Amino acid sequence: MKAYAEMSKDELLALKCELEKSYKEFKDQGLSLDMSRGKPCTEQMDLAMGMMDVFHSKADLTSASGIDCRNYGVLDGLPEAKKLLADMMECKAESIIVYGNSSLAIMYDSIARSMTHGVLGNTPWCKLDKVKFLCPCPGYDRHFAITEYFGIENVPVPMTPTGPDMDIVEKLVSEDETIKGIWCVPKYSNPQGISYSDETVRRFARLKPAAKDFRIYWDNAYCIHHLYEDKQDNILEIIEECEKVGNPDLAYKFVSTSKVSFPGSGVAALAASQANLEAIKKQMSIQTISFDKINQLRHVRFFGNIENMRKHMMKHAEILRPKFEMTCDILDQELGGLGIGEWIRPIGGYFVSFDSMEGCAKAIVAKAKEAGVTMTDAGATFPYKKDPKDSNIRIAPSFPAMDELEKAMYLFTLCVKLVSIDKLLETM
Amino acid sequence: MKAYAEMSKDELLALKCELEKSYKEFKDQGLSLDMSRGKPCTEQMDLAMGMMDVFHSKADLTSASGIDCRNYGVLDGLPEAKKLLADMMECKAESIIVYGNSSLAIMYDSIARSMTHGVLGNTPWCKLDKVKFLCPCPGYDRHFAITEYFGIENVPVPMTPTGPDMDIVEKLVSEDETIKGIWCVPKYSNPQGISYSDETVRRFARLKPAAKDFRIYWDNAYCIHHLYEDKQDNILEIIEECEKVGNPDLAYKFVSTSKVSFPGSGVAALAASQANLEAIKKQMSIQTISFDKINQLRHVRFFGNIENMRKHMMKHAEILRPKFEMTCDILDQELGGLGIGEWIRPIGGYFVSFDSMEGCAKAIVAKAKEAGVTMTDAGATFPYKKDPKDSNIRIAPSFPAMDELEKAMYLFTLCVKLVSIDKLLETM
Repeated sequence: MKAYAEMSKDELLALKCELEKSYKEFKDQGLSLDMSRGKPCTEQMDLAMGMMDVFHSKADLTSASGIDCRNYGVLDGLPEAKKLLADMMECKAESIIVYGNSSLAIMYDSIARSMTHGVLGNTPWCKLDKVKFLCPCPGYDRHFAITEYFGIENVPVPMTPTGPDMDIVEKLVSEDETIKGIWCVPKYSNPQGISYSDETVRRFARLKPAAKDFRIYWDNAYCIHHLYEDKQDNILEIIEECEKVGNPDLAYKFVSTSKVSFPGSGVAALAASQANLEAIKKQMSIQTISFDKINQLRHVRFFGNIENMRKHMMKHAEILRPKFEMTCDILDQELGGLGIGEWIRPIGGYFVSFDSMEGCAKAIVAKAKEAGVTMTDAGATFPYKKDPKDSNIRIAPSFPAMDELEKAMYLFTLCVKLVSIDKLLETM
Repeated sequence: MKAYAEMSKDELLALKCELEKSYKEFKDQGLSLDMSRGKPCTEQMDLAMGMMDVFHSKADLTSASGIDCRNYGVLDGLPEAKKLLADMMECKAESIIVYGNSSLAIMYDSIARSMTHGVLGNTPWCKLDKVKFLCPCPGYDRHFAITEYFGIENVPVPMTPTGPDMDIVEKLVSEDETIKGIWCVPKYSNPQGISYSDETVRRFARLKPAAKDFRIYWDNAYCIHHLYEDKQDNILEIIEECEKVGNPDLAYKFVSTSKVSFPGSGVAALAASQANLEAIKKQMSIQTISFDKINQLRHVRFFGNIENMRKHMMKHAEILRPKFEMTCDILDQELGGLGIGEWIRPIGGYFVSFDSMEGCAKAIVAKAKEAGVTMTDAGATFPYKKDPKDSNIRIAPSFPAMDELEKAMYLFTLCVKLVSIDKLLETM
């Protein structure tokens, strides 16, 4: 294929005319597809339906240690749920707290607590004139939304193929006492599918923050969410790494089973140092009596152990892999060599990240929407929804069926082409 | 019986000697009973085990309106769960939000949000020099603990047989702009089992607070938790009452099914005006993606409607009633006419409130503990755990089996007698 930038004005105009016909055909189909969020599909949720058979009316809901899971008590999680989630987190059971259904809610709560009560005896953030958070970009919009909601300034940091640009992170964190944290999705990152290199993780653990209450928010959302049996990323375990280098309190780590069992009906957990856990438990004892231990036990009885959970994730992979491969294949086939976009072929996680020519992302997403395909809003992967280059688009291939996804991806590439041509014509 | 205050020193000393023998016998039994919290007993939890049969691996978890409850989405609750909980709350479905498993967590969250973001556009409480909350006493320790945790000053207000002393409430609330709320358990109050009179509720709805961001925290924890089929309290509905008198935003109302289905694995909800709900939903959209809709649907499918839920509560009543009656019967029989304590015979809720002679409660609870019976800490029913008269003790008869409860109550009355005699002897 000839790169668009090398085409003459006439060539581009002719191509545009042809592409517009195809676009009109798509529009006439009256599509209505949603690729905006990383939602598992129906077949994926069917995988965990065995969980509904775990209990029946004569079942014994007593934990191995003799806890009646149907009653109040056990604030920080059932021992066996701690074991299972700790294995998932690659941590010790004593390093974690098992919560309710949402890891996002744990993160929100961690920020809210820091605002009103401070971190390990430091000044509550609400008493400070300025609080900043580092936001590796492109990143997860819901992370950025939490800090924005609390009036914390979100500071963008560029992503590299090995994780956030650590030269910048180290410099900012060591120099600026108002920087209190950083949002990280260290494995199969949202949206790029990048896993942090060992060097990146080691540099994170060795940070020397100016702020004593600086914390790494390590959202290991896709820790076991591989697309392949034989190609899997492994990252260093951050809590242990921090401990090793004498920085034990530096990181909070989060996971949930939302994309393992059921979104919204799973179990979420946090791992941290003993000092951090003690401070958090003090808050929890005020906040609630106990989380849903029946659901914790249901997960334990269904999965049994981490090996079975990993096997279960391979069933998810079998459903997701063809969708991700088709998504990337269509990008390769339709846009390869045209010089109007770049993308990364992920081996895990929930997204494919696409970068258009500068100044085209909003127009591409709008054009897809006009033909009935909803993508994540352009800009959503940056703080304040402002992508300075207007180029990043997050593609979420998990939810649509294969035939729908195929249509949606062809339409998407068509929109990329059309918007890119317009962009190029502008400057001619 | 002769009142203790009318006995001579010799009579008291002789009685003490005799009672101490009985106390020693109890001690020698090596009891280990916990009556400290309002925990349902095993038989009560068995009542809802049918809930475990509601779903199986082939079940359809689609809501009536076509929502797949296994996936993300529907932030403010399944429509049918809203209907059920709204009926429980005596509100309209559009006036409520259905959350996760804990109403206490909703209350905590409401205070936390007010601290960092303020109430309907008013100054965040964390920016104010002073924030106070009214605490009708005796009351629920976990309520007082939330406001204390946030550095809010808990101001005690006396309870009367018809609810909080409204003369005091009205005066304080209308004069003091730093008073931002009041904790209420309006029906079968914790611990007294008092239900607010219609006049009390009407006066609440008509409050003219100096603070625009004053809210009534109406924890209707025991709304359907009657002990009798034929003797039930009914209270006026606060949200509607506030609306009627042009104070629509004045109250937040909370319930949960913790003591209907399973403690910690139930469903909780909040009712409020549309303006309040909008502000809360704005926060929720940042805080989480969705609550556990599978558990919401499980409750809907199991109970079906409010009539069935009310019938279910009568099964709880059949288990609880004999325990409450025995508790009060033993108090009547052992302490009636002695002039060393007062108690209220409740017709609903989870507690029996006992008031000893002044300055005796701590010693009574300690003496019971010494013989193996754990009561709620004396003072717990007051802000900062300080009962100015050291007289209120909360008795929680729900959890122990009948034979254990009987022993525990005899021991308790024995402790009351012994400590009262010591008290009387002190002044002779």
